[in-house]
Amino acid sequence: MRHTFKFCPLCKYDLRQNLIEGRTRLICQKCGWIDYQNPLPVAVCAAINANGKILIAKRNQEPGKNKWALPGGFIESNENPEKACLRELKEETGIEGEIIGLAGVYLRKTKIYGSLIVIGYAIRVFKDDISVNSELKEAKFFSPKDLPCIPFFAHRKIIEKVFEDTFVETETM
Amino acid sequence: MRHTFKFCPLCKYDLRQNLIEGRTRLICQKCGWIDYQNPLPVAVCAAINANGKILIAKRNQEPGKNKWALPGGFIESNENPEKACLRELKEETGIEGEIIGLAGVYLRKTKIYGSLIVIGYAIRVFKDDISVNSELKEAKFFSPKDLPCIPFFAHRKIIEKVFEDTFVETETM
Repeated sequence: MRHTFKFCPLCKYDLRQNLIEGRTRLICQKCGWIDYQNPLPVAVCAAINANGKILIAKRNQEPGKNKWALPGGFIESNENPEKACLRELKEETGIEGEIIGLAGVYLRKTKIYGSLIVIGYAIRVFKDDISVNSELKEAKFFSPKDLPCIPFFAHRKIIEKVFEDTFVETETM
Repeated sequence: MRHTFKFCPLCKYDLRQNLIEGRTRLICQKCGWIDYQNPLPVAVCAAINANGKILIAKRNQEPGKNKWALPGGFIESNENPEKACLRELKEETGIEGEIIGLAGVYLRKTKIYGSLIVIGYAIRVFKDDISVNSELKEAKFFSPKDLPCIPFFAHRKIIEKVFEDTFVETETM
């Protein structure tokens, strides 16, 4: 989980727990600042190439180091979620594409970041030359019939949605 | 926008701006804590009754005080977004229902909370007895042909999606 805040980030006075709006939250004993904790929004990419294969990446960092997963990452402040998704795809894998639809929104709980809201998009890939950055060990396009083990429920549901919907029309399905 | 942090919430040392992962962020000069700023996830409700009318609320607080909008609110840590949506609907309007689909995800920029990720759900309402809490001035079911002015782009897009999709089948449409 996120490191527990001890001091007010506005006035550096001590924070204490209080029941606020139905939840135990940290509040500044001096200025009243409240540490509302919200899940962090993450955009993940169900990127499909012209052969109807989906891009799956082996992660090189926590959470889920060495596990297969959809590429993706945190949405930044003031960043459109679709743009965040395409940015992360390009940064992590070199792949460019276009959003073709929303493929689900899920809660995911992690040790290091606390809870995430995982927003999945189906993406049509223009060119499938992969070039991974340091966040990934490798990335490959997989047939939906031959996927590696993906231990993240939200990612599996997003993949299911993409292949059950009409997002993708290919001869290989 | 959110109040700018001045002190590290872990060690209360001064924060300073630095270029980190491509963005200017505040970092603690002592312990290295980084103030990553992410948009706050919000769930909003496109709640449709048996007559195909949609619930729209006049807000009683900022942002958007006195404006018509979809009911909704912040998703809490570890809270499923669908449950957050139904919880907010019940808290604000007394209405209970069930999720029938995802109706869009949008960025919204606000003065007091910074950027929000607005996640819209279509909801089938069981009973349409409205009882608003202090966050709302009033709430009413409107025909899609007779909506009040809703000054929030994300909300309008979510309403459009709900009525253009097959979420709702009624004789009034």
